[in-house]
Amino acid sequence: MAERTKAHEMAEKQREISVSEFFSKNRHLLGFDNPRKALLMAVKEAVDNSLDACEEARIIPDIYVELQQLKEDRFKVIVEDNGPGIVKEQIPKIFGKLLYGSKFHRLRVSRGQQGIGISAVLLYGQLTTGKGMHVTSRIGPKHQAHYFEIHLDTQRNEPIIKEDKTVEWKKEHGTRIEIELQGTYQKGKQSVDEYIKEIALINPHAQITYKTPEKETLTYARGITELPKEAKEIKPHPYGVELGVLIRMLHSTTTGSVSSFLQNDFSRISQGLAQEICDKAKVNPRARPSTIARDEAEALYNSILNTKIIAPPTDCLIPLGEEALIKGLKKEINAEFYCAATRPPSVYRGNPFLIEIGLAYGGSLEKEESVKIMRFANRVPLLYQQGACATTEAIVDTAWKGYGLSQSKESIPVGPVVVVLHMNSVWVPFTSEAKEAIAHYPEIIKEMKLALQEAGRQMASYIRKNVKAREQQERINLFEKYIPELAASLSELSGEKKEVIKLELEKVLKKNMKDLLSDVKEAEKTEIKGKNVAYGEKQSTLGDLNGS
Amino acid sequence: MAERTKAHEMAEKQREISVSEFFSKNRHLLGFDNPRKALLMAVKEAVDNSLDACEEARIIPDIYVELQQLKEDRFKVIVEDNGPGIVKEQIPKIFGKLLYGSKFHRLRVSRGQQGIGISAVLLYGQLTTGKGMHVTSRIGPKHQAHYFEIHLDTQRNEPIIKEDKTVEWKKEHGTRIEIELQGTYQKGKQSVDEYIKEIALINPHAQITYKTPEKETLTYARGITELPKEAKEIKPHPYGVELGVLIRMLHSTTTGSVSSFLQNDFSRISQGLAQEICDKAKVNPRARPSTIARDEAEALYNSILNTKIIAPPTDCLIPLGEEALIKGLKKEINAEFYCAATRPPSVYRGNPFLIEIGLAYGGSLEKEESVKIMRFANRVPLLYQQGACATTEAIVDTAWKGYGLSQSKESIPVGPVVVVLHMNSVWVPFTSEAKEAIAHYPEIIKEMKLALQEAGRQMASYIRKNVKAREQQERINLFEKYIPELAASLSELSGEKKEVIKLELEKVLKKNMKDLLSDVKEAEKTEIKGKNVAYGEKQSTLGDLNGS
Repeated sequence: MAERTKAHEMAEKQREISVSEFFSKNRHLLGFDNPRKALLMAVKEAVDNSLDACEEARIIPDIYVELQQLKEDRFKVIVEDNGPGIVKEQIPKIFGKLLYGSKFHRLRVSRGQQGIGISAVLLYGQLTTGKGMHVTSRIGPKHQAHYFEIHLDTQRNEPIIKEDKTVEWKKEHGTRIEIELQGTYQKGKQSVDEYIKEIALINPHAQITYKTPEKETLTYARGITELPKEAKEIKPHPYGVELGVLIRMLHSTTTGSVSSFLQNDFSRISQGLAQEICDKAKVNPRARPSTIARDEAEALYNSILNTKIIAPPTDCLIPLGEEALIKGLKKEINAEFYCAATRPPSVYRGNPFLIEIGLAYGGSLEKEESVKIMRFANRVPLLYQQGACATTEAIVDTAWKGYGLSQSKESIPVGPVVVVLHMNSVWVPFTSEAKEAIAHYPEIIKEMKLALQEAGRQMASYIRKNVKAREQQERINLFEKYIPELAASLSELSGEKKEVIKLELEKVLKKNMKDLLSDVKEAEKTEIKGKNVAYGEKQSTLGDLNGS
Repeated sequence: MAERTKAHEMAEKQREISVSEFFSKNRHLLGFDNPRKALLMAVKEAVDNSLDACEEARIIPDIYVELQQLKEDRFKVIVEDNGPGIVKEQIPKIFGKLLYGSKFHRLRVSRGQQGIGISAVLLYGQLTTGKGMHVTSRIGPKHQAHYFEIHLDTQRNEPIIKEDKTVEWKKEHGTRIEIELQGTYQKGKQSVDEYIKEIALINPHAQITYKTPEKETLTYARGITELPKEAKEIKPHPYGVELGVLIRMLHSTTTGSVSSFLQNDFSRISQGLAQEICDKAKVNPRARPSTIARDEAEALYNSILNTKIIAPPTDCLIPLGEEALIKGLKKEINAEFYCAATRPPSVYRGNPFLIEIGLAYGGSLEKEESVKIMRFANRVPLLYQQGACATTEAIVDTAWKGYGLSQSKESIPVGPVVVVLHMNSVWVPFTSEAKEAIAHYPEIIKEMKLALQEAGRQMASYIRKNVKAREQQERINLFEKYIPELAASLSELSGEKKEVIKLELEKVLKKNMKDLLSDVKEAEKTEIKGKNVAYGEKQSTLGDLNGS
């Protein structure tokens, strides 16, 4: 039996792959595809963490971001906050271990949710420069500030502490990180500058100071002084739990009976409902959860799906609110009209969520380009993968012509508009670890479209009352200007006298003007009539002349 | 100092997240987005492993796939091979632990490369049914077959062995898995049926027997009896190594000096080159690698980038070859013309790769639809995320009009064509863990386009010689058929006699026919002339008649 086979030889090569090794070879999955995006990711992950920590500790955030260019393709990124700080023992793991954190296992609105973000920054910095992350943190005036230099042991996915000391720090509490990494700095779309601008827009309670690589300091002042309301943690809704998860929960619960397990470990299950679920499943409600066999668990699972259970609580969600959204828009975008719509909460796969839309129209916004889309998930700007995002599908599927914008089939509409779309949820379903796009759940897209319609109607009403009349007057003026020239051309074609044609044209214009300048009821109708003046009427005038 | 701060409270919630927990909450990242795709993923991961194992053990593969429908949305998936089997001790980890395997750490052509695939199938099956995976494996006639029932402890990412026994098995060697999972079965694009068909096409050396849920047994017989040549492992090329990786390699190498490290742990570095690299970096070539500080490592890194090093060896690649590709196409696709092009090897980020194209034209293929694209990476069909794949960019960017197909701007061409595109590499850069699309490296897209052009020219030559003349004859026949009718209409319009017009038209047609039926040099030119007959000439005839 000791014969050595090919299988023995192959067995020798089998080994465990650490999650750090995996992501270090596949760093594009974390968003570190190229040096420009890497610089953005570093700032984004650090600022997201700062804002989350401040909100959880109920501190109004003051955040400092600095980019220092060290070489053509190397930067130092500094992010400092006035948050609650991190206890000394936790610092190495939070920054130096992938898949470590407090946000993954709870259902609670937060920017981070995976336990990957900031340690991925260290992983990437170390991969491209060989250097670690420098972290200073202080948890209160009675505590000393701690300084760490942390590397990441990719083969074990564990932090390596290179230095660890107490330091003097003027701040009473807060955290500062510094890291060197390969990057490139470029302004414009998808830049760090754009990210900072958007994060300020969507977090008007935060003050953000940003020192650019060109050593310019930009200050985004606080727009409101109130913190968003505190995020509540909720229990999973029974409809969102899969059979395998239900089995795991049954085996790890601290409750003593199936009935109390159902009531305590889920939201929205009363004693009566627990009884009903157990009855239907033919499971004894007083049985110990750990004794439930797979088949019984499956019966419970099916019974849950066949029982009417009300939707999960939604007070765990933290909308920006229409007012704050409009304030944010006004602060950052120079337009002539602003509106917003916050939808009531809804549910996908047992997870509560809500959608908010802000629209800015006109002013200095570009008329002939596609509308600018600004996407946010739990107050975090999403700058990449727009095409792969549910947001884009919702916008493309909305009939914008009815709201006064032009739009080709299956395209983003064209017009002087910024669309802000915010999804707020205890669990945002991202399409990748880099958290760049929202997955295409039908329930989410439906809510996005309803929100776009609400805001769209407000915008359409403004366009109808203010913009269309103005534009039509402009068109009439233009037409008047060309009447003499047109009359001359038509005179040559038809042989009729120029003056006669000119008078005729002016008569037609005047007749139509009355209709045009009166208050038209539908924005869309107005647009069609407008077109008639500019093109259609010209032809009918020609027809009249030929017939005369 | 014992004051309890918010930071202390927050610290209590921090904890490690296992990679299984992570992917169980984010299973869409592994390709298990929906029940239909999940069924495909399960078959795909198991068959990929079977083919890899057979190739590594130099066994001509015989694979059996069966889908049993148990309930509307529940299936049992069975995959059995005649591979080398797996030694008993390795079975639980290979199937019951994510990020475990032999393929991640080496540079060698294989279907799997991440150590996630088959354990992700167990993770998903368990999540949706609460059941585990049943594995039977035997490593040779002198060994007993082992049977395991394996679950996955998601909180620890470790296998749980539910049952473990020796069994009787008729097979001398091989592996069989059985798993229940939530799924839906649908034919057509992106189906299991399509996957099996494509895997047979691209692996003509494999025999695949597939029993569908409708209990139909399809047999894809072997097209060739030779195995692909054996895959060679290569060492990393110095140009593809990042600074952080270089540092890690320096610290873990078993070589005694920097010079021998450079020569042994990389490909393409001779003793002279190692000396040159060290000299430029001002590093002593005899220094122990583990004593090299970060700054010295960075100097070495920069010195490598500034030293001319020849491209990596490419005998590690295993092209299908043009002959096998055409054989595979002929076996599975009913067309009238087949051609193929295998490009010479190239390199991206230090990784050798090559691109192959197969084209099938005409026959029963649909004329008015977009060409059908079949994408493969290391002989694995890629059925999802076509839009996100480098392949699609390469096809869209190729000027197909020159090769006799019609194409709108930035679109997939239209015509009776199947395009097979195969990327072969020691490391295929996928855009996600689900391995559905190839990332957009410029070097890869360039090679794809060159291969498409090579095959495109062959197809164009065939179309020119055989198809265009046939089509033109058809058009002429059509025109002749309508001459009497056209003559009647023109006669009414012009007042000229019908017979005169008919004669005139026939004369024009005859004059043009000579040009048309002669051998035209360029497919594109031919197409334009063809159009002239059908539309343009009609007008000029009308002009002649009016003038008469």
